[in-house]
Amino acid sequence: MSEHNERVGFVGLGIMGAGMAGNLVRKGFDVVVYNRTAARTEPLVADGAEAAATPREVAQRCDVVFICVSDTPDVEHVLFGEDGIAAGIGDGALVVDSSTVSPAATREWAGRLAERGVGFLDAPVSGGSEGAAKGTLSIMVGGDDTHVERARPYLEAMGSTVTHVGVVGAGQTCKLVNQILVVTSMLGVSEALVLAKAGGLDLEKTIAAVKGGAAGSWMLANRGPQVIRDDWRPGFTVDLQQKDLRLVLEAADELGVPALATSTIFHLYRTLQREGLGGEGNHALIKALERLAGVQARQEDANGSAS
Amino acid sequence: MSEHNERVGFVGLGIMGAGMAGNLVRKGFDVVVYNRTAARTEPLVADGAEAAATPREVAQRCDVVFICVSDTPDVEHVLFGEDGIAAGIGDGALVVDSSTVSPAATREWAGRLAERGVGFLDAPVSGGSEGAAKGTLSIMVGGDDTHVERARPYLEAMGSTVTHVGVVGAGQTCKLVNQILVVTSMLGVSEALVLAKAGGLDLEKTIAAVKGGAAGSWMLANRGPQVIRDDWRPGFTVDLQQKDLRLVLEAADELGVPALATSTIFHLYRTLQREGLGGEGNHALIKALERLAGVQARQEDANGSAS
Repeated sequence: MSEHNERVGFVGLGIMGAGMAGNLVRKGFDVVVYNRTAARTEPLVADGAEAAATPREVAQRCDVVFICVSDTPDVEHVLFGEDGIAAGIGDGALVVDSSTVSPAATREWAGRLAERGVGFLDAPVSGGSEGAAKGTLSIMVGGDDTHVERARPYLEAMGSTVTHVGVVGAGQTCKLVNQILVVTSMLGVSEALVLAKAGGLDLEKTIAAVKGGAAGSWMLANRGPQVIRDDWRPGFTVDLQQKDLRLVLEAADELGVPALATSTIFHLYRTLQREGLGGEGNHALIKALERLAGVQARQEDANGSAS
Repeated sequence: MSEHNERVGFVGLGIMGAGMAGNLVRKGFDVVVYNRTAARTEPLVADGAEAAATPREVAQRCDVVFICVSDTPDVEHVLFGEDGIAAGIGDGALVVDSSTVSPAATREWAGRLAERGVGFLDAPVSGGSEGAAKGTLSIMVGGDDTHVERARPYLEAMGSTVTHVGVVGAGQTCKLVNQILVVTSMLGVSEALVLAKAGGLDLEKTIAAVKGGAAGSWMLANRGPQVIRDDWRPGFTVDLQQKDLRLVLEAADELGVPALATSTIFHLYRTLQREGLGGEGNHALIKALERLAGVQARQEDANGSAS
């Protein structure tokens, strides 16, 4: 791996970033880390990483710099804010952004960095905190071939599936595609279970009867049983889901395509946030449909008949 | 299997029924078949079945009578029409309906037959013509335990998964749950691929990147690649899908629950039927979204800007 005797920076040690950077350290790369709350660098330093005081310092000391923060303005800040990566990075370096953020902003950042001879990849991930800790993430990469090949050893240290889906921004667009699929699956599971409950079906047996065929999905097999058990612990919270759906709706608008299902789901999740349920798992979507069914049932009582 | 020395009737030898009856014959049961177009009995008779001239005659000669026809009025007709099953069936017999039809009508039929000492099960199937031919259907059964146990040897000859989901009608409701899941999955795949195309992604790589995780579904893995290849051959046609979605919407109305996604999808499929695409596979749903995107794109041209 002589061509990879590079120092690797990692900015953002949240629940995802900490796991990802940990895998880089454990696999023997020279890693320099930064986090706004400095205490979160300590376990990584104990494992052999070095800590830097600012994103700028990370960039000064590294050839490849990963970013994993929350949202578009956060990436903008660690890249171009005071003491940001752009203030310290050298010609020929590479920035890899594993946050889930706007594809349009991503293309703009890549353009600004390219003017200074700095490469850029967007490499958002799916697979949750467990995948980040275990190094089994699915990583969707957008950017130039040469940059992807340069980053591949690091990406493969963090993910079990690394897919180069297109040019800069394509990784983010692919992540949005992923999120459309996740939430429409959950809408289907919700609508199906509401009907099943109302129809008096045994819900466990119903899931068992249908999950192996054309009706099957990851969400049905994994979140369906959680719904039945009234277990709303988050794999991915409603609030984070909404952040990503906002990106889907912005991207759909920019691209001029409709997003019928996602827009409806966005507004359903809004009702859950309004009720203070933003910290529950995204499978709480069914509660929004149950509320609607409840309203309809009361109207029936008032009017005497449903049909 | 001495307790199953019963004669088994099968009414309706369409693409599903022919495969199902064939499995009963091949597994050694005494089978009497009827089909409106008598020629379709011939391959089964060649394999050892006997043919009857009417559903009434099937019922006169059999202890258990299966039905597999197209829609609610068809079941009504073979049960209670002239020369129908009810005109020939004896006290203590059992009728098993494997058509996909209205749960409410199902309960009514079961009640009428019970008054005459005849048992009833609803046992709709999923798995397509291939599953019917191979005996690997998923069968969702509603009715009394004793009837289910009596029918089980025949059901297990036709399906690899036989699930007793509740009382009479519950099998049909479970099949509707299955259909909600199928079409919402396909709506998600459609909305996701429309965005992916508009965003310039490599569609094959996009599916590969997301299908193994929380975004994964049978429809994405199996129909997604068909969409990309412009292959609209039906596993299940738009016209048949619409018949089943009409049943979903009727059941939802009767039960007083909303069906936000399914109602939208029903109207999208309507646009395909209007254009003469009812014979294409249900994955043609994406064409309805593509039409919407096309309209929106032209509006943008006229107005100069999208947002």
